[in-house]
Amino acid sequence: MSTFGTYFRVTTYGESHCKSVGCIVDGVPPGMALTEDDIQPQLSRRRPGQSKLSTPRSEADAVEIQSGTEFGKTLGTSIGMIVRNKDQRPHDYSETDVYPRPSHADYTYLTKYGIKASSGGGRSSARETIGRVAAGAIAEKFLKLANGVEIVAFVSGVGSVAVDRDPTSKKFHELLSTVTREQVDQAGPIRCPDPEVADKMVKIIEDHRDSKDSIGGVVTCVVRNLPVGLGEPVFDKLEALLAHAMLSIPATKGFEIGSGFAGTSISGSEHNDPFYVDDNGRFRTSTNYSGGIQGGISNGENIYFNVAFKSPATISQQQQTSSYDGVAGVLEARGRHDPNVVPRAIPIVEAMTALVLADTLLLQKAREASMSIVNPK
Amino acid sequence: MSTFGTYFRVTTYGESHCKSVGCIVDGVPPGMALTEDDIQPQLSRRRPGQSKLSTPRSEADAVEIQSGTEFGKTLGTSIGMIVRNKDQRPHDYSETDVYPRPSHADYTYLTKYGIKASSGGGRSSARETIGRVAAGAIAEKFLKLANGVEIVAFVSGVGSVAVDRDPTSKKFHELLSTVTREQVDQAGPIRCPDPEVADKMVKIIEDHRDSKDSIGGVVTCVVRNLPVGLGEPVFDKLEALLAHAMLSIPATKGFEIGSGFAGTSISGSEHNDPFYVDDNGRFRTSTNYSGGIQGGISNGENIYFNVAFKSPATISQQQQTSSYDGVAGVLEARGRHDPNVVPRAIPIVEAMTALVLADTLLLQKAREASMSIVNPK
Amino acid sequence: MSTFGTYFRVTTYGESHCKSVGCIVDGVPPGMALTEDDIQPQLSRRRPGQSKLSTPRSEADAVEIQSGTEFGKTLGTSIGMIVRNKDQRPHDYSETDVYPRPSHADYTYLTKYGIKASSGGGRSSARETIGRVAAGAIAEKFLKLANGVEIVAFVSGVGSVAVDRDPTSKKFHELLSTVTREQVDQAGPIRCPDPEVADKMVKIIEDHRDSKDSIGGVVTCVVRNLPVGLGEPVFDKLEALLAHAMLSIPATKGFEIGSGFAGTSISGSEHNDPFYVDDNGRFRTSTNYSGGIQGGISNGENIYFNVAFKSPATISQQQQTSSYDGVAGVLEARGRHDPNVVPRAIPIVEAMTALVLADTLLLQKAREASMSIVNPK
Amino acid sequence: MSTFGTYFRVTTYGESHCKSVGCIVDGVPPGMALTEDDIQPQLSRRRPGQSKLSTPRSEADAVEIQSGTEFGKTLGTSIGMIVRNKDQRPHDYSETDVYPRPSHADYTYLTKYGIKASSGGGRSSARETIGRVAAGAIAEKFLKLANGVEIVAFVSGVGSVAVDRDPTSKKFHELLSTVTREQVDQAGPIRCPDPEVADKMVKIIEDHRDSKDSIGGVVTCVVRNLPVGLGEPVFDKLEALLAHAMLSIPATKGFEIGSGFAGTSISGSEHNDPFYVDDNGRFRTSTNYSGGIQGGISNGENIYFNVAFKSPATISQQQQTSSYDGVAGVLEARGRHDPNVVPRAIPIVEAMTALVLADTLLLQKAREASMSIVNPK
Repeated sequence: MSTFGTYFRVTTYGESHCKSVGCIVDGVPPGMALTEDDIQPQLSRRRPGQSKLSTPRSEADAVEIQSGTEFGKTLGTSIGMIVRNKDQRPHDYSETDVYPRPSHADYTYLTKYGIKASSGGGRSSARETIGRVAAGAIAEKFLKLANGVEIVAFVSGVGSVAVDRDPTSKKFHELLSTVTREQVDQAGPIRCPDPEVADKMVKIIEDHRDSKDSIGGVVTCVVRNLPVGLGEPVFDKLEALLAHAMLSIPATKGFEIGSGFAGTSISGSEHNDPFYVDDNGRFRTSTNYSGGIQGGISNGENIYFNVAFKSPATISQQQQTSSYDGVAGVLEARGRHDPNVVPRAIPIVEAMTALVLADTLLLQKAREASMSIVNPK
Repeated sequence: MSTFGTYFRVTTYGESHCKSVGCIVDGVPPGMALTEDDIQPQLSRRRPGQSKLSTPRSEADAVEIQSGTEFGKTLGTSIGMIVRNKDQRPHDYSETDVYPRPSHADYTYLTKYGIKASSGGGRSSARETIGRVAAGAIAEKFLKLANGVEIVAFVSGVGSVAVDRDPTSKKFHELLSTVTREQVDQAGPIRCPDPEVADKMVKIIEDHRDSKDSIGGVVTCVVRNLPVGLGEPVFDKLEALLAHAMLSIPATKGFEIGSGFAGTSISGSEHNDPFYVDDNGRFRTSTNYSGGIQGGISNGENIYFNVAFKSPATISQQQQTSSYDGVAGVLEARGRHDPNVVPRAIPIVEAMTALVLADTLLLQKAREASMSIVNPK
Repeated sequence: MSTFGTYFRVTTYGESHCKSVGCIVDGVPPGMALTEDDIQPQLSRRRPGQSKLSTPRSEADAVEIQSGTEFGKTLGTSIGMIVRNKDQRPHDYSETDVYPRPSHADYTYLTKYGIKASSGGGRSSARETIGRVAAGAIAEKFLKLANGVEIVAFVSGVGSVAVDRDPTSKKFHELLSTVTREQVDQAGPIRCPDPEVADKMVKIIEDHRDSKDSIGGVVTCVVRNLPVGLGEPVFDKLEALLAHAMLSIPATKGFEIGSGFAGTSISGSEHNDPFYVDDNGRFRTSTNYSGGIQGGISNGENIYFNVAFKSPATISQQQQTSSYDGVAGVLEARGRHDPNVVPRAIPIVEAMTALVLADTLLLQKAREASMSIVNPK
Repeated sequence: MSTFGTYFRVTTYGESHCKSVGCIVDGVPPGMALTEDDIQPQLSRRRPGQSKLSTPRSEADAVEIQSGTEFGKTLGTSIGMIVRNKDQRPHDYSETDVYPRPSHADYTYLTKYGIKASSGGGRSSARETIGRVAAGAIAEKFLKLANGVEIVAFVSGVGSVAVDRDPTSKKFHELLSTVTREQVDQAGPIRCPDPEVADKMVKIIEDHRDSKDSIGGVVTCVVRNLPVGLGEPVFDKLEALLAHAMLSIPATKGFEIGSGFAGTSISGSEHNDPFYVDDNGRFRTSTNYSGGIQGGISNGENIYFNVAFKSPATISQQQQTSSYDGVAGVLEARGRHDPNVVPRAIPIVEAMTALVLADTLLLQKAREASMSIVNPK
């Protein structure tokens, strides 16, 4: 199904080759200043054709708000948004009529639905993410107003090249505390804030592009200034909701919060984050292996996590595979395709993060209100 | 909130020191043979006190079905289950009245709810997982009847010691295809099916236990015989639901499906899983980097994933930290605690996996029925 | 929030004076023939300006499918639909800037959201129902294919004039068993299948229109050929879902199923519907006071219910009331308004009925599939 | 499924003849004083055996809180509650093994689930409502603390005898504004606050009891002191949620809010509720045909509604019907049964009302918090 969130909720529609893609966002606070200008920047960061590193399919991806705002303010009612599909070429993928593309969704879709969209994968198209990014931009605006929440994602790995993201590294935590979206974009289309590493990443991608191959990577995301108390114990721990959100992004294969997989071999005596009170009287931890979440609930420290993206499935070189009919053969995808999707995934990771946080923030606000009712100070 | 799933759904209750813990399971197929004997084995695998590797707190954890079955068959109505708390010692944690335990949920719970359970963390207690395991056992029975689905989890890493789980390793895939729950348990309390590695793991845990410290680890889980077509595109991809489920388990820090983080540096030309038709006429892939899921939908291959567990936060050695009042001091936890939770996490991982799969199976069954209605063959 | 349903689900957006209104429909069976031609007829029955009995605001209300179909077949993915707002006159309601219209939603919206749409009531506009009708048309097509399900609503009362709808009346049950949508529309814009009563209804509405007043009415709806077994015990009884759906339609004040309020004074010995087996071997009831639902579950008999609609709140005559500022004064609504909404409510009642039934049908189909798995015959 | 509500949510389990019935309540505000003493009174009002007017099956129905509270205060976590079934007589209904009871749920349950509980109707037992009443008592306590919200239900009709509940009647509105739960109970087991009418009602019930028959009735419920702004436009209008809640109670056949069905023949010029500002500066309406809800949102006036209950299906006199096998025959129910359920339905109606209101209150509190964030004063 195509709905995400409970209090702050998005529902999306749209395939690669239909009239438009879009979404309905519900639960948006009323009275918030909001126009297309708040939403378009992240959509533009997401769209293809931004550089030689990504697919040449170029679309303006201009969002049009349909409802839920008047005179530049939200009404508190559901916000409809659409982005027209201008580049509809339903026959461009004809070779995929014979062969399901390996590691793409062609075969599973056909089996699941018993019908095949002309583009093969239907909703598995990257254009599906437009609705997420548009909704996420609204969530992000709310979070910024709420507590000055900052969400910054960046490319931290491509192939075997990566920035230092050792959870014990001071440098890594300094980067997390300071990196801005502007710095990420200044790094060029690769969106890695470490220039030296960025150059190597670009080289890797170009090499794969030139050999009609593809390569994966890792996105790291940090959330700063989040209030204490978001996330629900048990099933809806904050890291569980983030993991759900991240693994719902196309091509993702992994998620780790805080110390993550590396943390499994750090002893408890080191891994535990001791408490202290800082100069502003805030209860803090002196290390942050927890990644800003303890017991499923935000503790006010930076939230940071890594998301693994596999190498894109669509490559231009020949692939030995089987036709739908079970006949072995060779598939050669026409057209040009992203040799690496990680840079374009940045605004999607940020959007999904914002959607999770806005939802949990509203839920906690309801609880706080109920607490002050039953137990007034 | 305390509900997981939509069509196959569990709702849980219970803290460490209340009368009982339990759950209500809804959406269970009617007419299925079911008694406590189907549920108790996994609860017994989960309970503490099974070996020197785990906490001595010993409880029978006997489940009592309250409703939803008659004469050993399910009625299709909601199934209530309770497990009494016999070992209630509300004052055992008194030192935590002064100090929030580092990297535990004491501080975040208090801030979130404005009230503190005597055990500190309230629902963050490991006893919360009893309801999950009980519900998961029912889901598992349904899945086994549905398609002979097999779910086997095992300890694949403790500290820096790990079994070979390289996604390119043939040996690893052979293990995934053959490992049984019996083999896992025969390996002793460590629940690692590779005896040599198991010995090293035990040594690491014992060392940490002896130094009043703790250590983390990794659980690997495989699902065999799952039908093609489970999981929804977009937000509820099968891997997203699994990630949500796994990161909701206490002490987890990471999730990776198929090739996972390692897969980010494997080129697309290698990473793509070519299709072929096997001797039984089934559409298969010759490799399985995808981990049995493509486009968010199961493809019939083995699903496998890793879950990272951090070192337990509660350790017996002294920890420099701060009291709730902001006074720096030393916390020394009394009592004995698990130096490593990974072996006991095995049935929890299996249970949460089963809950996700039963839920997606019911949804897909509804769709398949609707397909055959609108498009009869 | 703006979502209805679980398995078969609609999410809507749109106010009176925004760019478009629309919806996203999720859970639609894949492979079903579907074009705008399946949807437009009910939208055309809903739209204003159809006769002198309704508001002259005239709009084509042409629906455009955005996604989820290809070559006239559904893909199983979410279906976006939009209807453009052509008649946007944001200043036509300016007098309502001073006075909240009595019994309209102006005051409650402003208090709830702290902001006022130029049209006053925001989502309380009748245009909000377009998304429901569009989604309902899809649900209805599925139901017809599923079991030949027929849903027919008609005007059974206007003011104090009503058709015979005594639950003990044979004539009433004959009408329920035979009435068609064609008959309802042939009755003219009043949509009452009894010509004599229809004439009186028209007279009442015209009288109220001429005196710048308004009047309410009752819609009766019958569902035929529904399979046995839809609806869930406890909270989601079929009549509870229908009541929810009906009372969510603007201007409704009441709902009764089967014998309804009249049935409260019929003794059990008469009210109980005895079972028998009909000539086709079907288990039937010889009377139908239950209205086709027993224990919250459909029993295969005709489902029938009444929905009360109040007199429209917007009238053209002067009304003594208070301004937002608390100053007593006189409100005189400009423009022309529906003196009675009941005829236009017919397709909305049918749509909401279809949405409930499609949702419960899918849920039951999942259960039936699970039953045959755990208890094969 | 067995869950009701989103933010304040109850999940129930239990049939007539299982070990216990119970529920899990989630979303309860933390820090609220709560013990069994807050819950038992409404359970005791619900239980059978209170008078000659109801079934002699007598049970203590003592509730036991399992979790979610400590030292008499809520922890904010899920609250498990159980009530043991003491009067288990699985064979008392054996004649129903042959005959599905007319207008009972036996036949529809068997068809839906393919299996029959020994009590026939499974979850359609009145004992299912225990979980609702227990959860409702918690909701009610929260509402009382929140705004002094008062919920009072009473029997307003039995058979053809009724109190004056004409929406145009001043006396009726005075009753709604003043009636207390104590007054309702002082009226004796019939729970009708008008003594003269009460006597007639008792006579009707006794007559039906003596002739082994049954009779229905109407419950009226009023909510006072509810804040403005509860209920969501479109699908979750406050009256829609109340209708859903009421029609989910066993044996209900109708719901009407405010003027209800009678209001359909009151002209808009009279039916509209004019606004004024009262002596306390509150924005009020001088009449209240709306029943305290406008546009689906509470307006601060009294909410009042009627709920129709049919005559109980289980009667002791002989009934001509068909066996499951299709053989015509005579069913004679053994044992004694309620000739009228309306008095015992009072606490159930109050409970379901409280559950709806607590849920909508939490949602609106979240919105209000978000409003003050994005638009600080």
